[in-house]
Amino acid sequence: MMLRFKDIPGLRFAGLRCARQRSQHAVTRSKGPRMNVYLTTLLPLAIVPIRGDSFLFSSSCADRLQGTMACSLQDLAFLEASKAAEIDEKLMGPLGFSIDQLMELAGLSVATATSEYCAQNLQRILVVCGPGNNGGDGLVAARHLYHFGYKPVVCYPKQTAKPLYQGLVTQLASLDVPVLQELPSAEAIERDFDVVVDAIFGFSFKGEIRAPFADIISTLKKISKPIVSVDVPSGWDVNEGNKGGVGLEPAVLISLTAPKLCAKHFKGHHFLGGRFVPPAIRDEFGLKLPTYPGSSMHVLLHSKL
Amino acid sequence: MMLRFKDIPGLRFAGLRCARQRSQHAVTRSKGPRMNVYLTTLLPLAIVPIRGDSFLFSSSCADRLQGTMACSLQDLAFLEASKAAEIDEKLMGPLGFSIDQLMELAGLSVATATSEYCAQNLQRILVVCGPGNNGGDGLVAARHLYHFGYKPVVCYPKQTAKPLYQGLVTQLASLDVPVLQELPSAEAIERDFDVVVDAIFGFSFKGEIRAPFADIISTLKKISKPIVSVDVPSGWDVNEGNKGGVGLEPAVLISLTAPKLCAKHFKGHHFLGGRFVPPAIRDEFGLKLPTYPGSSMHVLLHSKL
Repeated sequence: MMLRFKDIPGLRFAGLRCARQRSQHAVTRSKGPRMNVYLTTLLPLAIVPIRGDSFLFSSSCADRLQGTMACSLQDLAFLEASKAAEIDEKLMGPLGFSIDQLMELAGLSVATATSEYCAQNLQRILVVCGPGNNGGDGLVAARHLYHFGYKPVVCYPKQTAKPLYQGLVTQLASLDVPVLQELPSAEAIERDFDVVVDAIFGFSFKGEIRAPFADIISTLKKISKPIVSVDVPSGWDVNEGNKGGVGLEPAVLISLTAPKLCAKHFKGHHFLGGRFVPPAIRDEFGLKLPTYPGSSMHVLLHSKL
Repeated sequence: MMLRFKDIPGLRFAGLRCARQRSQHAVTRSKGPRMNVYLTTLLPLAIVPIRGDSFLFSSSCADRLQGTMACSLQDLAFLEASKAAEIDEKLMGPLGFSIDQLMELAGLSVATATSEYCAQNLQRILVVCGPGNNGGDGLVAARHLYHFGYKPVVCYPKQTAKPLYQGLVTQLASLDVPVLQELPSAEAIERDFDVVVDAIFGFSFKGEIRAPFADIISTLKKISKPIVSVDVPSGWDVNEGNKGGVGLEPAVLISLTAPKLCAKHFKGHHFLGGRFVPPAIRDEFGLKLPTYPGSSMHVLLHSKL
């Protein structure tokens, strides 16, 4: 039994809207029942907020979807790299967070947003982790993706000796998630993976891309599989975007805490994660954060499916 | 526009089943559109798994709901207190987790499960925190409940000086979540709160209930508002249940990692959270863990709504 959107009065508009937005990519992913394309594209917004005051079948559903999905880039505030660093310092200083907590929550939101994007069709996930916090978010995300039923493989070529990071690697080992020291070849990635999570560089990245990450980014630029970037597409200038075209061109960006300035130039599928920003930080830094649905760890800012 | 279950062929059975299960409590909560009762009761199971291979509208929906909701208590393994402590030691020893991480994930799952239970009708949440890890889970849960849009108030009479706990209190202060030193009177709780989260004692509780928690439990036993217990209903013997009837009788239990032995005697609404158990631990301790839906942090084991 399959129900189509046109059979649900409240969803007629939403269904039409979704159909208009689908790209070739979404169509490729729609090998299952046709409903699934709509569901993975739309429903997280309408349904995950279990305690929201609207719901899938309410007559105002279409308006609410419209409001959530068409979150205009103009409605967002974008953070300079230096301000993002300041927020992190405040969170881990006077606001009492430990880096373990923040990385767990950030990495979890990377996993839930990636899982929304990957749905059930993109199972084999290569998570490429850099040497710093962005890489740590990737290690956390890989663990949660395992628990969500995906098949993650981690590439972590420059491991840090800090206990937090060593612990994250130990946790992955206990799940038999492979942790590679070297990136597979472009051909092997094409063959063995459905999607690549880019957790190489975050908002502290500056200057030249150093070895081995220059080669890694160069390899990842060759593959056709979709890339999901964590916080900042690797190789991009955090404030100015993909200067000189040296950086990755991800299909998906998962901004953390708030989008960085470079995200103004990103036109793909855009999520926000890191649902822990206190109102005082929001106000002090002039952030304009959208409403997260229900108890979700991420929110869709802009859809490109 | 309101759609009824009978209008969705695949849901007919689920609708009937749900109606049969509703208790007076669920009816009290159904002041909104009638659909909402069904949705808050049923849909989290069917819809949160965005990437699951079944979905709300599939023909096998009823079977899958049946499978998930009617998770028989016989299908679960229950943990002795000593075994639960052993698992914690392994997670934080050879398996590389920090207590910050585990408490964040446990507390988050308490918040997501509580939010599923509270839906939109139970907004004012009193979180009563004990002196140990169970209380820490409560502090984390209160923070997430704030971010989910609820109005939590914390009662935390025996604060520990450890940095992690002090940080959790600082985080709540930054959100202007009140942290009380004393429990309000039974009358004030009845008037000012819709639900109470009991994060007083967890699986390490033994022996006599000490001050001030003896009085606190005695007060909480007088109120009619639903109680959501974290891991173990406070006052219960962790292995044997509510010996002598001195403990709380919660409407909801959120077991963490795996249900404790005493949960065999719990007949209410039962969630499981703490989605971080590696297969090696599951096998070594003979845990029978249900499948969590999609990227959800909790799973409903047994419904009493």
